[in-house]
Amino acid sequence: MKTIRVVVWNENIHERKNSRVQEHYPEGIHSCLANALNDGAEVSCKTATLEDPEDGLPESRLDETDVVVWWGHVGHARVSDRTVDRVQKRVLEGMGLVVLHSGHYSKVFKRLMGTTCSLGWREAGEKERIWTCDPGHPIAQGLPAYFEIPHEEMYSEPFGIPTPDELVFISWFQGGEVFRSGCCWRRGNGRIFYFRPGHETFPTYHQPEVQTVIRNAVRWSAPQAPRWIDSCPNIKISPEGVQQMEG
Amino acid sequence: MKTIRVVVWNENIHERKNSRVQEHYPEGIHSCLANALNDGAEVSCKTATLEDPEDGLPESRLDETDVVVWWGHVGHARVSDRTVDRVQKRVLEGMGLVVLHSGHYSKVFKRLMGTTCSLGWREAGEKERIWTCDPGHPIAQGLPAYFEIPHEEMYSEPFGIPTPDELVFISWFQGGEVFRSGCCWRRGNGRIFYFRPGHETFPTYHQPEVQTVIRNAVRWSAPQAPRWIDSCPNIKISPEGVQQMEG
Amino acid sequence: MKTIRVVVWNENIHERKNSRVQEHYPEGIHSCLANALNDGAEVSCKTATLEDPEDGLPESRLDETDVVVWWGHVGHARVSDRTVDRVQKRVLEGMGLVVLHSGHYSKVFKRLMGTTCSLGWREAGEKERIWTCDPGHPIAQGLPAYFEIPHEEMYSEPFGIPTPDELVFISWFQGGEVFRSGCCWRRGNGRIFYFRPGHETFPTYHQPEVQTVIRNAVRWSAPQAPRWIDSCPNIKISPEGVQQMEG
Amino acid sequence: MKTIRVVVWNENIHERKNSRVQEHYPEGIHSCLANALNDGAEVSCKTATLEDPEDGLPESRLDETDVVVWWGHVGHARVSDRTVDRVQKRVLEGMGLVVLHSGHYSKVFKRLMGTTCSLGWREAGEKERIWTCDPGHPIAQGLPAYFEIPHEEMYSEPFGIPTPDELVFISWFQGGEVFRSGCCWRRGNGRIFYFRPGHETFPTYHQPEVQTVIRNAVRWSAPQAPRWIDSCPNIKISPEGVQQMEG
Repeated sequence: MKTIRVVVWNENIHERKNSRVQEHYPEGIHSCLANALNDGAEVSCKTATLEDPEDGLPESRLDETDVVVWWGHVGHARVSDRTVDRVQKRVLEGMGLVVLHSGHYSKVFKRLMGTTCSLGWREAGEKERIWTCDPGHPIAQGLPAYFEIPHEEMYSEPFGIPTPDELVFISWFQGGEVFRSGCCWRRGNGRIFYFRPGHETFPTYHQPEVQTVIRNAVRWSAPQAPRWIDSCPNIKISPEGVQQMEG
Repeated sequence: MKTIRVVVWNENIHERKNSRVQEHYPEGIHSCLANALNDGAEVSCKTATLEDPEDGLPESRLDETDVVVWWGHVGHARVSDRTVDRVQKRVLEGMGLVVLHSGHYSKVFKRLMGTTCSLGWREAGEKERIWTCDPGHPIAQGLPAYFEIPHEEMYSEPFGIPTPDELVFISWFQGGEVFRSGCCWRRGNGRIFYFRPGHETFPTYHQPEVQTVIRNAVRWSAPQAPRWIDSCPNIKISPEGVQQMEG
Repeated sequence: MKTIRVVVWNENIHERKNSRVQEHYPEGIHSCLANALNDGAEVSCKTATLEDPEDGLPESRLDETDVVVWWGHVGHARVSDRTVDRVQKRVLEGMGLVVLHSGHYSKVFKRLMGTTCSLGWREAGEKERIWTCDPGHPIAQGLPAYFEIPHEEMYSEPFGIPTPDELVFISWFQGGEVFRSGCCWRRGNGRIFYFRPGHETFPTYHQPEVQTVIRNAVRWSAPQAPRWIDSCPNIKISPEGVQQMEG
Repeated sequence: MKTIRVVVWNENIHERKNSRVQEHYPEGIHSCLANALNDGAEVSCKTATLEDPEDGLPESRLDETDVVVWWGHVGHARVSDRTVDRVQKRVLEGMGLVVLHSGHYSKVFKRLMGTTCSLGWREAGEKERIWTCDPGHPIAQGLPAYFEIPHEEMYSEPFGIPTPDELVFISWFQGGEVFRSGCCWRRGNGRIFYFRPGHETFPTYHQPEVQTVIRNAVRWSAPQAPRWIDSCPNIKISPEGVQQMEG
């Protein structure tokens, strides 16, 4: 079993400005998640943030990355189009991508989906109950029929995404809404997973079930195959083929 | 615009035994739905019940039917396998099928899905809120962002179905569950729609929004193409093909 | 039946430079297709080209358009990103899009797919045989089991697209390749169809079967529902919901 | 890495009656495939045939089986419905199923698909070229852009199956046909792969590329999760839920 090399990317803005967020994530959401994922054996996890050179994801970094976990919100527009180009290319070549919460509106997720990725929302700190609708899916392993997050931001349908290839979780919100919270897509050779929870003002990423989902998603999205270099080759006809066409 | 010929099929058992059901549906669920669908112009709707000869769906009847709407519950086992064979064949040839509520466990739905079609349930008369997650879908037309049914039986995930081709509605239940309530599949030339609501002890099918969904589903599932007769033809090679293979 | 308002968009470059193309399409590919589609009754078809103001597709034009048919090749890069933004937005709101041949590499198709859209190719003027793999599909109506184009450019798998929602045609090429030639996707409220044939140096768009496919695709992709304006609304909780959360 | 326990099931009829088949498979197609798959380490492969008790697949046997590989043709009708029930149930609980060639018409495949599974065919011993249309898929690993089988039975579209979740291979035939030759579905917790080649009168299963595909498919379809026992549980409402409903 090869080690899966993960980078948790975080814009790391709220954590430096908002004391409530700092309380939950004194070293940033990225560090919290990296600590949770880093088991030293199967997964080797590092972090990157928006203030790093080239948005934290230069070619050299991506060269040694199997899966990127993405958290962004107020800084979406600050991510350069070049970075988006690089990450999109890598995903299509086989790199895994796990997009969290407000990352639904990140440039890279919208680029890969091709749709609006819009949704409804409400910050009322209400209860979220996350149901597993595909209990045999690798990302659902080790989880109960449902689990609850005591206080979260609400996201509601319609969620402006292409029909997921596989739908693993659906959320129920105390205030009366539902949301497709765990969605899988294959794009090119890469696998993409979107997971809803994780508003910065709540300690969501400290919750064991949430960590289990993200850990499972990292394993599920790790590349299983040699990378495929995109191209539009001009295909020469084989001698036998020429014969057929002349035949 | 050709008239769509619909048959609402109902096992018609609860209505004859349970006074509470009789109150809501004195002439049976089938009559309530047929009256709602029958607009005299675009849709011409008749009914059939389990006690009719050949389970109400002989070949001659299917010959003049474009869409079947199916309601069944305690009588699933009484539907003969021959009837299931006939209905499955017609759907694969192009006939539409709209399966309601406990019809998730009907022989014909399980046959077409190939899966368990199992789910969780609770009879507590709780509130159901039905969300449109695909607002541009033909079956969602004329409906608001969500609508509520004041009292319904609860169905919960996991729902043991193949991934729907299109997911139109997701239900939120007062007691804390969610369910994929409006699911579309194409099988062969036919279109299948499953719609969750409609427990017999509640007046659900009198509700305008519910009727709108079923009316839309009938239109969506009506055959759009000539029927295709299933076969495994032995294909002769064309003279030119022989030349190629000898070439 | 409302008239479907179609715009055939063509970069119109080859036709003005290459005498062989001019021979087949003296008034441009767009005019050939518009004449074929324009039946005066169900479909009302106009044209637009790259040299028109705002790439031929200003807001005012899109306001009165139900379906865009797209042909581009050497001019992909000349289409402005603003035009791509406008067309993408309209498709997600419900406008149909039929992308032809080398349009697989157009900015707007790549934007909506999120993938490379790459493929293999060969210009040998070989025979293409197009098989219907979904004979009940609306886009396959009126077509035989297969039809042939005597001379075409070859496109081969792998085709770098998201898994199509529906696959209608697969091509067989004389030289030994295969290709998914008729692919359907739903994105937002819009429907997208990609159809492979139509190299500019062959009279492909004069062939009746090819015209039938494009005519069917226009009908299939015409909006069936009110347009949905994208947004991320902040949803207020209902008084009843507040009660539940406090309950 | 746990060993994957495979059973290759074969009706084993042609091999005992037809000398040409005996020549290619003196110990039966099942033994040829089991030898190819049995690497002693990751995969442990045994065989079962129609003449064994309970069609070779009693409960006790399935209890210790992760993946079944299925070859059948003239004996489809001899497989008992009880056996089909058992195998279907296991697949829905998580067992993998790899269906080969004429197994497209086996009872168990048709049961799981819900469709006709019909196709066109020709026995002319023509060349088949199998294209990988999804080069990043686990089942395509170790294979070139395409590989050829010198002489095979032809299968042609339309193939009467539900749209595959993932399409890995498309075949080109010398006589002019195409076919979706490598198709993936998820049903319940189980994974199903259909692979086209393997007519009994040709030495197809001795070919290394064909063996690679089946080996990859066995790994891909091996259960990744605890088995899920199907049921329709009556879900009690939680005290908190009752409070909400009374609230």
